[in-house]
Amino acid sequence: ALGQPAFAADANVFTPATLKASSDIQAKALAGSGAYGFVESLTVRVGPRLAGSPAAKLSHQWAEARFKELGLSNIKVEPFTVDGWERGIEHASILSPVAHHLHVTALGHSVTTPPDGITAPVVRFDTLEDLEAAPEGSLKGKIAFVDKKMNRLQDGGGYGEAVGVRGKGPEAAARKGAVGLLIRSIGTDSHRFPHTGITRYADGVTAIPAGALSNPDADQLNRVLALGQPVSVKMVLSSQAMGPLSDANVMAEIKGRELPDEIVVIGAHLDSWDLGTGALDDGAGVGIVLAAAKIIKSMPQAPRRTIRFVLFGAEEVGLVGAYAYAKQHAAELPKHQAGTEADFGAGPVITFNANFRPEAKPVAEAIGKALAPLGIVPGRGSSSGGPDIGPLAAQGVPTGGLGLDGTDYFDYHHTADDTLDKVDPKKLDQATAAFASFAWLAAEAPMALGPVPKKAE
Amino acid sequence: ALGQPAFAADANVFTPATLKASSDIQAKALAGSGAYGFVESLTVRVGPRLAGSPAAKLSHQWAEARFKELGLSNIKVEPFTVDGWERGIEHASILSPVAHHLHVTALGHSVTTPPDGITAPVVRFDTLEDLEAAPEGSLKGKIAFVDKKMNRLQDGGGYGEAVGVRGKGPEAAARKGAVGLLIRSIGTDSHRFPHTGITRYADGVTAIPAGALSNPDADQLNRVLALGQPVSVKMVLSSQAMGPLSDANVMAEIKGRELPDEIVVIGAHLDSWDLGTGALDDGAGVGIVLAAAKIIKSMPQAPRRTIRFVLFGAEEVGLVGAYAYAKQHAAELPKHQAGTEADFGAGPVITFNANFRPEAKPVAEAIGKALAPLGIVPGRGSSSGGPDIGPLAAQGVPTGGLGLDGTDYFDYHHTADDTLDKVDPKKLDQATAAFASFAWLAAEAPMALGPVPKKAE
Ligand SMILES: [Zn+2]
Ligand SMILES: [Zn+2]
Ligand SMILES: [Zn+2]
Ligand SMILES: [Zn+2]
Repeated sequence: ALGQPAFAADANVFTPATLKASSDIQAKALAGSGAYGFVESLTVRVGPRLAGSPAAKLSHQWAEARFKELGLSNIKVEPFTVDGWERGIEHASILSPVAHHLHVTALGHSVTTPPDGITAPVVRFDTLEDLEAAPEGSLKGKIAFVDKKMNRLQDGGGYGEAVGVRGKGPEAAARKGAVGLLIRSIGTDSHRFPHTGITRYADGVTAIPAGALSNPDADQLNRVLALGQPVSVKMVLSSQAMGPLSDANVMAEIKGRELPDEIVVIGAHLDSWDLGTGALDDGAGVGIVLAAAKIIKSMPQAPRRTIRFVLFGAEEVGLVGAYAYAKQHAAELPKHQAGTEADFGAGPVITFNANFRPEAKPVAEAIGKALAPLGIVPGRGSSSGGPDIGPLAAQGVPTGGLGLDGTDYFDYHHTADDTLDKVDPKKLDQATAAFASFAWLAAEAPMALGPVPKKAE
Repeated sequence: ALGQPAFAADANVFTPATLKASSDIQAKALAGSGAYGFVESLTVRVGPRLAGSPAAKLSHQWAEARFKELGLSNIKVEPFTVDGWERGIEHASILSPVAHHLHVTALGHSVTTPPDGITAPVVRFDTLEDLEAAPEGSLKGKIAFVDKKMNRLQDGGGYGEAVGVRGKGPEAAARKGAVGLLIRSIGTDSHRFPHTGITRYADGVTAIPAGALSNPDADQLNRVLALGQPVSVKMVLSSQAMGPLSDANVMAEIKGRELPDEIVVIGAHLDSWDLGTGALDDGAGVGIVLAAAKIIKSMPQAPRRTIRFVLFGAEEVGLVGAYAYAKQHAAELPKHQAGTEADFGAGPVITFNANFRPEAKPVAEAIGKALAPLGIVPGRGSSSGGPDIGPLAAQGVPTGGLGLDGTDYFDYHHTADDTLDKVDPKKLDQATAAFASFAWLAAEAPMALGPVPKKAE
């Protein structure tokens, strides 16, 4: 109820000195964390950095150089293999009953169309479920168009409701005989930017090319369909599979002063889609992690436990870097005190929740109280920690969830419009304050935060 | 001062019956003018309609059909000739010191680059004036980049301050030896949509290809230039001149009941740029004009003078339709009671001013008072009437200026993002109320509103 403290914390969890340090970390971040400068450097000196690409390699060098500049220890570039893919020519248009150019982009890992594209009648569905319920063979020779609109919600909850069609749509359409799939972009904007994102194919089902239309173009296709005549669309998506390529996670540490083999992970992903410069997704997270490292490194003494800064590779194409980390560090996972990731834009952080063992609930409450001066309130449910933390949570690693304000995030997500001008340095400073002080407090905690029950993936 | 009536009108200019009719017109429009439906029909059934193109011809047929449906008289499609031009492949990228894709579009009527494009070092200028002040020959073999930012103002005043470089930039750059020109888009948004618009070349100066970068891409080029190393850019703009093509204005009338040979013109332009669907520029104006015609036609009696609804062609490429109209109707111009045009987006109308002869000042005041219930206040200075009215004003035709709220107009102007979703039907109804009641009152006025001194073009 109103008037009650948001976090009802036990005053004795952290020492006054630890809380003072946390508060100093926040003040330093709010005074100018430097996070924006890292995002600028990454997006200008590297730019888009698709998993497995030469730019991704450049981003590893960039990250390694930043960690060295910051004077961190145990800097590692840890390679893994990822399936490569490249976008080619992208074009779609309505040919009849009226001609219209459509702004389209291939879903990530879409198979290519023939060079001349596919021209076919369009059949529209409200949802993936409606497509899945279509009679067998009813889409033979057709292009399926799934028109589900994403809702704008502060916590990004609309994404989960809408994104299913991006992954499962090609299989579902192909099972009905379709030769191609177009979806309304999974995005909340009304600009002519299509939103890409990974799709997947099922064994034993024909892989058909799949693209996303921008929201205004999906609207226009609806209006043309509403004329009541058959609608013919041409789509050209000349993408290319590149085979297995090398990619990597880049990590570094500030060694713990008392329990150096216990680890708090604060992460973000270094890779991005190819259309924009990945400023929000996830340049902002990379900036937060590096600025947090800088500020924590500047403290008079090291944290009690080790804080590990992990910049994951190949998140966008299926958390490939995160699974590689979980595998490569499997022996250490029981020693992972907590994990969290910044991968939801450039701030501010507005909620906090945790998934700690029951005995550590007072620690979660005390961390929440320490975050409250930043305007942070308790979040709903328990924390996932972020996408790349998922494979760790699946092994019982406790997680902290710093919920970023995602009201506008899906206006830009996975589009050409995800560029540096969308990042507000002051909001990013607040987010850095939250992530850095969380990492500090989790590392200082008087008890282990886990293990927790293994999360289903 | 606050508290004074915005328009100090003489109560005796219009009869109570005339004012009642004006008020009824506004009420009908506000209750649902139908303007949005016209914009939807034009943008869906025709789409983009570049001057001289087959789509422009389709738009003439569309307009003629609408005028017929509305039962207007003296419907005419009045042809003229325009220089045709077509956009081709458009691509730009920074090649070094770091690679970046840039979102670019050719300025209207730009000459083409060679098929392989132009690759050259970039030299940046703050303004057109700075480019013009560069030493002779200093840009030999270079691409000039003019980086002037447009200001966001309610009345669009930032456009006039910034747009000069679009028309004069190619000549200025070529005079210094440049092989190409890139400008920061004349637009107020921060999305990756470049803004096109007509440019021109001077006799005796090499015509060089010219394009606009989106604002975020201009920002990025600046950041790369700030690295302090030479910056090489490649630009491919494969446009094509199409020679003289046929285009037309489309007009219709509601004949005056007392002075049928005296004419109030209410206009908009039917053509658009090719990138978007021209919903705001100037589908909205077309919708306003057609909905105004529908409402005025539905009144119990015709207006005292003739109201002529003119949908101009080829506005975007230099007011070609407007000049043709002024020439073809030269003999009638002294009988033009007033002219106004809706060509500044989808409303609402927020200001009114007039350029009437001094004796008709009370009429302007009385019209202002009749518009005030729509939330309209006096505008600054005297009215231009709108771009296509310019050639009439140049011949002494009085003009009414219904100032549309242009706060967001230049976010979309001349971009691919100028689409129907940007049009708010309620705001468009208000604008229709203003334009229709203005036309009605100008046609009912107890005296001639002109002639006025010929305006310099
Ligand atoms: Zn992400
Ligand atoms: Zn992403
Ligand atoms: Zn216009
Ligand atoms: Zn225009």
